[in-house]
Amino acid sequence: MRLSADLKRSVPFFSPRYVGHMASDLLLPGVIARIITTLYNPNNVAEEAAPATLDKELEVGLQLARMVGWATDPSATPCAYGHLTSGGTLANYQGLRNLTAAKFYGVALAAAVRSTPALLGAISARGEAIEGLDDWALANLSVDEIITLRADAMRSSAARLAPEARAGFGALVESERHESLGLFGFFTRHPDLAGARVLAPATAHYSWSKALKTLGWGVDMMGTVRTDRDMRMDVAHLRELLEESAHARVPVLCIVGVLGTTEFGTIDPLGAITDARDDARALGIDASIHVDAAWGGYLATIFRAEDGGLIERDALRKRFHYFPSQEVYDAFAALARADSITIDPHKLGYIPYAAGAYVARNRGLAEFVSHSAAYVFDARDEEEDPSDRMRHLGEYVLEGSKSGAATASAYVTHKVLPLNERGFGAILRHTIRSCEYFYDALGEWRERMSDRVKVTMPITPDTNLVCLVVNPAGNTSLAEMNAFGRSLFSQMSVELDASLQRRDFIASYTSLFAENLAPVRAQELLAELGIRPGALAPRPRGPYEDDHVYMLRHTLMNPWLMQENERGRNYIDRYLDHLEHLIDDATRRV
Amino acid sequence: MRLSADLKRSVPFFSPRYVGHMASDLLLPGVIARIITTLYNPNNVAEEAAPATLDKELEVGLQLARMVGWATDPSATPCAYGHLTSGGTLANYQGLRNLTAAKFYGVALAAAVRSTPALLGAISARGEAIEGLDDWALANLSVDEIITLRADAMRSSAARLAPEARAGFGALVESERHESLGLFGFFTRHPDLAGARVLAPATAHYSWSKALKTLGWGVDMMGTVRTDRDMRMDVAHLRELLEESAHARVPVLCIVGVLGTTEFGTIDPLGAITDARDDARALGIDASIHVDAAWGGYLATIFRAEDGGLIERDALRKRFHYFPSQEVYDAFAALARADSITIDPHKLGYIPYAAGAYVARNRGLAEFVSHSAAYVFDARDEEEDPSDRMRHLGEYVLEGSKSGAATASAYVTHKVLPLNERGFGAILRHTIRSCEYFYDALGEWRERMSDRVKVTMPITPDTNLVCLVVNPAGNTSLAEMNAFGRSLFSQMSVELDASLQRRDFIASYTSLFAENLAPVRAQELLAELGIRPGALAPRPRGPYEDDHVYMLRHTLMNPWLMQENERGRNYIDRYLDHLEHLIDDATRRV
Repeated sequence: MRLSADLKRSVPFFSPRYVGHMASDLLLPGVIARIITTLYNPNNVAEEAAPATLDKELEVGLQLARMVGWATDPSATPCAYGHLTSGGTLANYQGLRNLTAAKFYGVALAAAVRSTPALLGAISARGEAIEGLDDWALANLSVDEIITLRADAMRSSAARLAPEARAGFGALVESERHESLGLFGFFTRHPDLAGARVLAPATAHYSWSKALKTLGWGVDMMGTVRTDRDMRMDVAHLRELLEESAHARVPVLCIVGVLGTTEFGTIDPLGAITDARDDARALGIDASIHVDAAWGGYLATIFRAEDGGLIERDALRKRFHYFPSQEVYDAFAALARADSITIDPHKLGYIPYAAGAYVARNRGLAEFVSHSAAYVFDARDEEEDPSDRMRHLGEYVLEGSKSGAATASAYVTHKVLPLNERGFGAILRHTIRSCEYFYDALGEWRERMSDRVKVTMPITPDTNLVCLVVNPAGNTSLAEMNAFGRSLFSQMSVELDASLQRRDFIASYTSLFAENLAPVRAQELLAELGIRPGALAPRPRGPYEDDHVYMLRHTLMNPWLMQENERGRNYIDRYLDHLEHLIDDATRRV
Repeated sequence: MRLSADLKRSVPFFSPRYVGHMASDLLLPGVIARIITTLYNPNNVAEEAAPATLDKELEVGLQLARMVGWATDPSATPCAYGHLTSGGTLANYQGLRNLTAAKFYGVALAAAVRSTPALLGAISARGEAIEGLDDWALANLSVDEIITLRADAMRSSAARLAPEARAGFGALVESERHESLGLFGFFTRHPDLAGARVLAPATAHYSWSKALKTLGWGVDMMGTVRTDRDMRMDVAHLRELLEESAHARVPVLCIVGVLGTTEFGTIDPLGAITDARDDARALGIDASIHVDAAWGGYLATIFRAEDGGLIERDALRKRFHYFPSQEVYDAFAALARADSITIDPHKLGYIPYAAGAYVARNRGLAEFVSHSAAYVFDARDEEEDPSDRMRHLGEYVLEGSKSGAATASAYVTHKVLPLNERGFGAILRHTIRSCEYFYDALGEWRERMSDRVKVTMPITPDTNLVCLVVNPAGNTSLAEMNAFGRSLFSQMSVELDASLQRRDFIASYTSLFAENLAPVRAQELLAELGIRPGALAPRPRGPYEDDHVYMLRHTLMNPWLMQENERGRNYIDRYLDHLEHLIDDATRRV
């Protein structure tokens, strides 16, 4: 009873008056599945503890794979696989973990082959015997090439070696890997490969720097790619960084493309990113692509026809005012060419926490992180159905015991609302339309407010997030504008000592940092707002008032935002009314 | 409806006829709390998304801290803190992450101080200015010393530096840490510290090797401590390894003590381990202690009086036949001296997946892994209540979004059943008593079966797991004995194609590997079983039949195992009857 009473203090995520963080009402199929499965409490660490839910977890992986355009036919190569994680952060760790395990496998295999040259016979990559390839070449095979290389080595080992010699060779390969030697030991042995870095946009979620710290690479290994004026990755800069890496022979652990940034909902140009990666291969450098689609992953359902095909842009456009721009369309179309992806069912999948997902285009990637199989260097393994091995899921994932109830929640939701334009897409279209409505309504509202405030939307929305900057008329001080923004937010924030239910709306905030803006763009933005030119300056990290532009941030994921009340006003109209009211109050106080 | 039907294939963990893995019936308060909180779907990443459950997560951390004997008074030092994780694996990662972050912080701070000597004034550790200490000394400060060192540096920085200089100095310290440089960069700069390793017993859960692989240290950095005949850490060997490390100047990242091994339920002698660590300090080496009590953590409630004190061994013994042995008692008493601990509420806390926990004795440990605070090198931070900072929990943990429902489940369960001998202890005593009953019953049963099989319990249970080896009378072949064991297990296993409900009992299995047995112990065990001497041989990892002894494994965590049926037979009697029946069937078939 006490808990139940206390939970009334919870944030009313379900309400269309909540437009703050990435949380909303839940889909009932997912809630019901979560609850009834909790009573059975299956543990998806292994099928033995989850006969009814482990196969569903692997199926959820395949559902999500099909959603982004990956092949899931187990009789063909590549075939995708995926699994749930406790959230997007873990899925990002898993992405980095799997790609780096594969990236340096060839180096380890070649070292083992060199030390026992006669043992295995010729194993080759790109037409050359691997013992003849240098570390740089071996560390720049693609994911698919390295998977093939490993399979060839297994087949050769099975054909030529007795079981004990096979185990011995397997152990030798293992002993040369960074997973055995540690990053220090491995790069001491292969100093030419040291300094390997991740290329990610400035807008990447902070879980990427957590990942670099946690997984031992170090945040200095983050090669930050600039963003353009729409807060999307600047692909020209990516190309520069790739060329620079190729010339300096610095391996790229992976390129992170963001499909729906946490702060702005913007979509990195994955098509152009993938082209840049493909083009860089001519320079001898290969980089895998992990897409952080924790936020935007489910939006792919808008683009997916019932038959699994990609819907043409022209057909899609009929359902929206602006969406999808050519860049956004190309990004979703290019998902099929990425190597792995993070998608959060507990965000735009509208199911309860904690449910993230990691999915890879080629299931061979899992073998590089399998725990028990490492020493069993045996092609029989390859011949058995890989999804049978995956039934010991705990050996392939970063976590151990896993909630089967989270799986059931995602699985049933995807059954009720299939991952295509008729299922999930129907809900997610509403969120984009809400954003377009907000965008359009803002034009008129800006006019109406022009005597009192200057208003801008510094980033054109790619999806369903809107950020606003509001400056009182006549004010030229950046610090004062930011303080004004904070005072507005304080009326729409979650406070522990106030009754949340008395808030008319709940929003969130974010900042646009000077270091992420081109100087010309910064000047333009200040001019739009009437702020003194030059007021915005990049600074070392710290609590400064003049290194950022404070913005009200609105996540428009609630599907009922366009619902009208008896006076024909929907929640977005009413939000703008409310904001006007807050502004009037605040300016009167000033 | 389909899910509900399908869930009938789930493993009936709730049944006392399930004595397999570490799963059992759930406590209703935890189930109810989980379900009702799911409807509100709080996200414990930050209090702003979880006003009703974030404080409860921190409180669960403190409840668990008090359970193991740590101080939780926020006005005193040290004060413990803790949080939930998605499971024990993540809690183990967090343990290694936090301890290694602290371990090398002094090295980074000294490097920063040396490069700007006049800036901060004298900061000292063990009475010496830190710039005068060498890397070895700096990497061998205790957790408490390093926390104090950091606080001193903060105070000095706040007193002497202007805000911008403070931020600059903070950034300088950060730039010298392995979290920035990566493990390769850091140890290249400090080669004397390379090779740092974890000391853990051979019985440690495989999440520890996952941790070393995942976090970049490498599994070669696992210094495996031998186990004794009771499958507890051999402290004489630990002392040898510590001395060897001190002489070779190889840092110890941490010592892992296991409180309830996954395979056997055995308890490492934490008292003796902590003594060994304390004694090694005289050799100039310091090692933090992380206790992996994923399984056994809640058993501490048996030892904890309502007033929070430790119950005397003599008083405890009255409630059991054998428990607790002096060694086991000492281990639980010594928990108070460890540095951090993993405890799984989803195991002996009897709540639904996924709920693990990480708890540290000194909350200052959290500051070394805080994300945003790193650059704000400011004593104001220290002055504010640290638990207020912790309200941005996502910045201190490996995960991001976190289920507030998992928190509510643990919190309400701990409220209904407090973490002392009158609350949880009452349930857990039952599990120990069941084990003692099994142990006693086995004596008689072994006699009764002696014409048909030889039976041994190779490991005297420390807690509530029992492992048995069964050899058909007259058989001298190890391989045949193992095959016989497998055939028995096949009648008590979870099979996907059979109706689980038709199993009389469900058990699990494990193996005792030759490499973990002293030769004299191996011979003794074979002799007890009538197996040809010398049949058991250590082997490189692989699928061999003669490198292990296969054992039936029984987890006796269901509190109803001693419940009698109308004929006065409890579930353990009935299990032994069933095993007799299976043996008779199998020997008839042979």
